[in-house]
Amino acid sequence: MAEKTIIIGGGVGPMAGVALHQKIIENTITDGRDQTHLSVFHFSRSADVPDRTEYLLGKQTQNPAFGMAQLFAAAWDSLRRVAGEAEIEAIGGIPCNTFHAPQIYTVFLEQLSLRGIRIPVLHMLQETMDYLDQVVPGVMEVGVLSTTGTRLTGLYAQLLEGRGKTILQVPDSDQGALQEAIYHPQWGIKAVSPALPQARQRVLLMAHSLVDRGAQAIILGCTELPLALSESQFMDIPIVDPVVALARSLIRRAAPDKLKRL
Amino acid sequence: MAEKTIIIGGGVGPMAGVALHQKIIENTITDGRDQTHLSVFHFSRSADVPDRTEYLLGKQTQNPAFGMAQLFAAAWDSLRRVAGEAEIEAIGGIPCNTFHAPQIYTVFLEQLSLRGIRIPVLHMLQETMDYLDQVVPGVMEVGVLSTTGTRLTGLYAQLLEGRGKTILQVPDSDQGALQEAIYHPQWGIKAVSPALPQARQRVLLMAHSLVDRGAQAIILGCTELPLALSESQFMDIPIVDPVVALARSLIRRAAPDKLKRL
Repeated sequence: MAEKTIIIGGGVGPMAGVALHQKIIENTITDGRDQTHLSVFHFSRSADVPDRTEYLLGKQTQNPAFGMAQLFAAAWDSLRRVAGEAEIEAIGGIPCNTFHAPQIYTVFLEQLSLRGIRIPVLHMLQETMDYLDQVVPGVMEVGVLSTTGTRLTGLYAQLLEGRGKTILQVPDSDQGALQEAIYHPQWGIKAVSPALPQARQRVLLMAHSLVDRGAQAIILGCTELPLALSESQFMDIPIVDPVVALARSLIRRAAPDKLKRL
Repeated sequence: MAEKTIIIGGGVGPMAGVALHQKIIENTITDGRDQTHLSVFHFSRSADVPDRTEYLLGKQTQNPAFGMAQLFAAAWDSLRRVAGEAEIEAIGGIPCNTFHAPQIYTVFLEQLSLRGIRIPVLHMLQETMDYLDQVVPGVMEVGVLSTTGTRLTGLYAQLLEGRGKTILQVPDSDQGALQEAIYHPQWGIKAVSPALPQARQRVLLMAHSLVDRGAQAIILGCTELPLALSESQFMDIPIVDPVVALARSLIRRAAPDKLKRL
């Protein structure tokens, strides 16, 4: 079977796309030469993909689904050029948790279908559930740090509870402070790369509170968070990065023999 | 003037493309939101772009120019989808020093022209000369670490001497060891990410020898080298990364007002 081209629907945020791209490279088995790496086409056009949390909160009227569908249309055209339409084999992923809110994600998938863009797209949060079972099997109390938008959708709660697990989140009264660590225009993770100590400290404080309350693993449920908390363990608790889960699932679907062992 | 979309001709090597992408994000002025970042389309398809040094040494018959031109054709089609042909405004860059050897680069530019792909492409090594004058003005003795392929072309020697500077390279007898640090299939920089201590030590040793011989700045003339030597200084000598030079030149051409000050 031919290897599939991996499509990154990026720009959400831009650095999360870069992190996904890097994790794909790091998790691919090669013979050491460039030529045995997988093909990755990475599209980042943030100006046309409004903020996902703002859309869910009603502060932004344009659904980010449309801008992202347009990027996949661009990807489709580029795939046609390198492969010819009959031979297009691709698999896509979008490194933004909040984008997977049903109000956005289902509209996005409808748009792909309506426009004849036959690129299957992996659902990052579902892939994260499978990854969680691989890396920390049997864990029951799972902490999740996320944007306010992702939290409002209840997606992680639903997915974890569907697998018989309990979700732990920061108290309602702290969610605003977590959102600020991601979004603050001067010192937030989206604003400054690499992440500033102030943003990192805020994220560590939140992770600490989840561990105190009994979390046995913590999902970084916003793709900006690993930019501030890149360790694989925190206070002896495993940190689960959905971007790594997505990277590994993309490789598995693109070329199963090239996925590195955990 | 509208902002231009930045096209990364990636996969040469894959991680160098990611580094360029990251440096573009880090050197862009935004208001802290995703939406004010520049558009970047990044194409990596290494299987169709043979090794540049092997081609120059005659060990590989297919010119990597053709595979890269095909990637820019794919980029062109994706730009057409998002912008409409009349409005396409783009600027490209290729983060591989050896690709800029005239035997490859001129064939690549010819292919773009023949195929009607009107994406101006910046010459990374020329941009590096301008960057050198900005960050270390007046420096006369410039060390260059590079692949055997880039060294054979004499490109850096020619560009530096054209500006009245002297080039220092590792002794001929050490060039094979430097090439090995980049290309060794088990421990080379291309093979293992993040770079292993063994590769890093080899690169540091080479840098050390250039400083001993009087280098006042060192250009990392292969885009894999900054993955092993990421410091901006080494033994008090400034390290010049052509990928940063290219990232900054791409931003300047895409949206001059968004280039961060040095």
